[in-house]
Amino acid sequence: MPLLTEDAKGVYIIAVTPFGDDGAVDLASIDRMVDFYAEAGATGLTILGQLGEAPKLTAAESRELAQRVVARAGDRLPVVVGVSAPGLAPMRELTDAVMDMGAAGVMVAPPWTLSTDDQVYNYYASVGEALGPVPFVLQDYPLTTNVTIAPKVIERIVRDVPTCVMLKHEDWPGLSKISALRASSDKGETRRISILCGNGGLFLPEEMGRGADGAMTGFCYPEMMVGVVSEYQKGDAERAHDIFDAYLPLARYEQQQGIGLACRKYVLAKRGVIATGKLRKPGAALSPADVADVERLLARQERRLQEIGA
Amino acid sequence: MPLLTEDAKGVYIIAVTPFGDDGAVDLASIDRMVDFYAEAGATGLTILGQLGEAPKLTAAESRELAQRVVARAGDRLPVVVGVSAPGLAPMRELTDAVMDMGAAGVMVAPPWTLSTDDQVYNYYASVGEALGPVPFVLQDYPLTTNVTIAPKVIERIVRDVPTCVMLKHEDWPGLSKISALRASSDKGETRRISILCGNGGLFLPEEMGRGADGAMTGFCYPEMMVGVVSEYQKGDAERAHDIFDAYLPLARYEQQQGIGLACRKYVLAKRGVIATGKLRKPGAALSPADVADVERLLARQERRLQEIGA
Amino acid sequence: MPLLTEDAKGVYIIAVTPFGDDGAVDLASIDRMVDFYAEAGATGLTILGQLGEAPKLTAAESRELAQRVVARAGDRLPVVVGVSAPGLAPMRELTDAVMDMGAAGVMVAPPWTLSTDDQVYNYYASVGEALGPVPFVLQDYPLTTNVTIAPKVIERIVRDVPTCVMLKHEDWPGLSKISALRASSDKGETRRISILCGNGGLFLPEEMGRGADGAMTGFCYPEMMVGVVSEYQKGDAERAHDIFDAYLPLARYEQQQGIGLACRKYVLAKRGVIATGKLRKPGAALSPADVADVERLLARQERRLQEIGA
Amino acid sequence: MPLLTEDAKGVYIIAVTPFGDDGAVDLASIDRMVDFYAEAGATGLTILGQLGEAPKLTAAESRELAQRVVARAGDRLPVVVGVSAPGLAPMRELTDAVMDMGAAGVMVAPPWTLSTDDQVYNYYASVGEALGPVPFVLQDYPLTTNVTIAPKVIERIVRDVPTCVMLKHEDWPGLSKISALRASSDKGETRRISILCGNGGLFLPEEMGRGADGAMTGFCYPEMMVGVVSEYQKGDAERAHDIFDAYLPLARYEQQQGIGLACRKYVLAKRGVIATGKLRKPGAALSPADVADVERLLARQERRLQEIGA
Repeated sequence: MPLLTEDAKGVYIIAVTPFGDDGAVDLASIDRMVDFYAEAGATGLTILGQLGEAPKLTAAESRELAQRVVARAGDRLPVVVGVSAPGLAPMRELTDAVMDMGAAGVMVAPPWTLSTDDQVYNYYASVGEALGPVPFVLQDYPLTTNVTIAPKVIERIVRDVPTCVMLKHEDWPGLSKISALRASSDKGETRRISILCGNGGLFLPEEMGRGADGAMTGFCYPEMMVGVVSEYQKGDAERAHDIFDAYLPLARYEQQQGIGLACRKYVLAKRGVIATGKLRKPGAALSPADVADVERLLARQERRLQEIGA
Repeated sequence: MPLLTEDAKGVYIIAVTPFGDDGAVDLASIDRMVDFYAEAGATGLTILGQLGEAPKLTAAESRELAQRVVARAGDRLPVVVGVSAPGLAPMRELTDAVMDMGAAGVMVAPPWTLSTDDQVYNYYASVGEALGPVPFVLQDYPLTTNVTIAPKVIERIVRDVPTCVMLKHEDWPGLSKISALRASSDKGETRRISILCGNGGLFLPEEMGRGADGAMTGFCYPEMMVGVVSEYQKGDAERAHDIFDAYLPLARYEQQQGIGLACRKYVLAKRGVIATGKLRKPGAALSPADVADVERLLARQERRLQEIGA
Repeated sequence: MPLLTEDAKGVYIIAVTPFGDDGAVDLASIDRMVDFYAEAGATGLTILGQLGEAPKLTAAESRELAQRVVARAGDRLPVVVGVSAPGLAPMRELTDAVMDMGAAGVMVAPPWTLSTDDQVYNYYASVGEALGPVPFVLQDYPLTTNVTIAPKVIERIVRDVPTCVMLKHEDWPGLSKISALRASSDKGETRRISILCGNGGLFLPEEMGRGADGAMTGFCYPEMMVGVVSEYQKGDAERAHDIFDAYLPLARYEQQQGIGLACRKYVLAKRGVIATGKLRKPGAALSPADVADVERLLARQERRLQEIGA
Repeated sequence: MPLLTEDAKGVYIIAVTPFGDDGAVDLASIDRMVDFYAEAGATGLTILGQLGEAPKLTAAESRELAQRVVARAGDRLPVVVGVSAPGLAPMRELTDAVMDMGAAGVMVAPPWTLSTDDQVYNYYASVGEALGPVPFVLQDYPLTTNVTIAPKVIERIVRDVPTCVMLKHEDWPGLSKISALRASSDKGETRRISILCGNGGLFLPEEMGRGADGAMTGFCYPEMMVGVVSEYQKGDAERAHDIFDAYLPLARYEQQQGIGLACRKYVLAKRGVIATGKLRKPGAALSPADVADVERLLARQERRLQEIGA
């Protein structure tokens, strides 16, 4: 399986973890989901992220999930695996396991104990050392990690840690951060790495405009990310915005913490991708009022997509 | 000036603080801004909030601003004044001053030191005691205050503190909180207070659907909030969503922290409401790329509003 | 191996994780350490806590460590194992494994995402359900977990979850919390559970005075905790304070975050308990100035202990 | 009144705010307190700090308090005034007022919104610009402000902002920070500023050993800080530790958040310094069990001081 490189572009989908009604991991749904994402135009997949339901899995289940996803993805989709952990030894343990399975790379968010510029830099320097040749994604998500990383710190890491090949950008607001990083690499001051954007895709067109290479997020309509990214790559920013705007009301609704994941799984189940939208306990469930909200948004989205011919 | 009551409905605009190029408070812009909001259909105004530029004002400037806004608003718009403070004595001092000027009520966010249910309840009980007969708004904004208030704690406060007449709702996600509070008052278990919603208006149609009475937020197009609220009050939810969707791309952009306020003032200045969009130092400024983003969103918004005939 | 019960008393030592110079877990030191704690008068041991170096262990190393400690402790010392995890499934997985080895019970700290009273209560109710018959310790450590638990919430948990048999008390300040819990059980309103105190033992005499049953902490002189607890149990509070005061300067120094653990291991190595004081990377190391501080405190402590005949 | 300089040494006492039984500021107690601190050997006073009861004062009361303290202190004690504020304009407003009264300088803690090195640096650069020629103290208290400032950031500020003349050191653990700053100024790389230590004095002997110039804290026995600092200045570290150890059990008890301030005022009232130990609402009160703890510690402290002839 080819490794993740700094040339990565397109849409890496953050996959959900499908469970059956009995709470067990639903392997058949995993296969269907991987196929669905591939057919929708995804470029890659990301699994075992911090905000999904990966923390609810046992170690054995996590391995089984990763194995299944990687096997099904095959040559079609490189798979990035979240390996953030409080210590380097368990991080390396999981990394070794998933790279053996055929993963393309791993993703590491900073622990919340980091504060100063040097602390952040030193952490990623030691991550690079611990993971050896494995390419990794720096996940920059201050809202959740509570760690703010200045652009110049990212540049120091990029300069000194060659295996850092991608930024998962979800600082918020973060458009100026993309601009700063691209200005630096355009001037040849730092290596140009891949920047894929998260935050549920809520700023994707503007992020593409600043020089992002695509998206890494899990909105239940990958068609949105695929459409926005490809139209931007073709140079049609207005068309990218048209597509984005059609999906935005639902994308916004899905971005609510907790309930958002239930919404995402509800839609994926309704679309036939996974067998059921249930979250493993403890997890939020949609109320009838939530479902009514989502259904209204879906109906309106359908109409709007037809109006714009998408 | 009539006092704020639990029957309040409609749109209370969070006003910006206009400064001149020299950094001084721009009194002429204040007058124009108050007139603009009144003509746009606002029901009331809110000033000296925590997230605006009020903390950058001297005490004297804050009083002058409040005086000017209240005077200009006259009978047209009741004015709510943010009086959150670490101690009850300075809170009462400012409250007394603005109520003397003719304010309709005050707004109080919880200090970040509160954690347990009883701590939150006791705090608002002592606020009610300290403010005497002055009606107040409970500002529920966990993302910023770091204090999560369960619906049943709000219900306890509503039950025991009769001067708590309004909830400024900006928990996130928070739709289920509105549902819970309305279920409780519908059953007669608690007094029904006014619920006005914040969060930049990003969930306004759904919030109206759950029983909110309107909005209290500062998006640069008050037409959005006024339109959504009035269409919902007329029973036309789809039309409310149409209006909402047209403004959503810009509303989302304006919701970015820091840069969002600069965006709001840029648009208000462009619309001729305030003389200049400058923030007092220290404050973010829009980059040329930010301005280009906003201009594109404005042009697209204009087109979309024409398409839907709004 | 007998299970942990609500009658537990005495001193449970938080064990360090000994590493060799090569960074591997040092099994021989584990044996020596368990013997040392038993001979020093400890009542039990606690391992795999959140603040030690357990997060730096691989899953395999964690199991090996637990196995080794439990085996060496044998009948002498019941072992409590920290199993806090973001999800219930991995928590149960580790719990099952260590209970099979012969652990006496497990310890669970709340995830930082909990805020309201009901959220905390519901979390521990679901922990109780997930762990089945396994007795567990509620770790109440707001400084680190960022979750404040009101006494009445602990009482609700104690009332409804019979397998919650112990409180690891390290709220700070927390003397009034012990008083409140004991008042409640003295009146027969709630079951009386064991309360063992943490916080490096810095408030141990006062905590015993409020009704605590002992200590659960890892200060490098277990003699301090054993002495204070036993003198209090004999009714000699002044003698308990004499012993406490002699150790307090060092205990205070050891309470510094990060460097404190390096200090603890330095002293344990100097005392011959573990082979070397090294922390696994990433971990703080003592500077020469730090070592000089510790050596001065040790010399002064020695003199003071002789003066008081302890 | 002479201004604060980087040569400041000794003990600046954080003064309490005395209230009468009616809740009003007790001016007579202020005079007595200032005299008491002067006679106890204090070098200066600090008022209107963030953690005391200053936030409970109205603006008028704050001015009156500052005026009274400065007037009573006269030539005996330079007075530093806390002026931390969310905006620069109110900070300058209060600064101007207190400098006019005769204060020696002001103290500024960082707002919690700062994260990266540059954000912290830029903040203090703009503080220096806003305050003009007024000398200020950089308050470095991460536990409360949530802002961690690396030594090299302090060095940048010291290099570029000449009016930054003192560090109020209360990072924790922070001994290595003092060592780093002193190494830098010893090598002539940065200006040597005054370092006075806070944290209730709990690490004062070690801090003096690393090169601190004294203490800025409010423990109810200023004799402790005065004794430790003067013995260290005389070169008798062991005697400094003897004095420190005698007071440590009480100093530790007083360091509890909330209840600690009530303890401090209780002792000051008992010593006849202030009329009553009451805190203004909302504020913690000592329970009978707390009072019993404090009385025991006072009796033991008295005995120990006699034993060591202090």
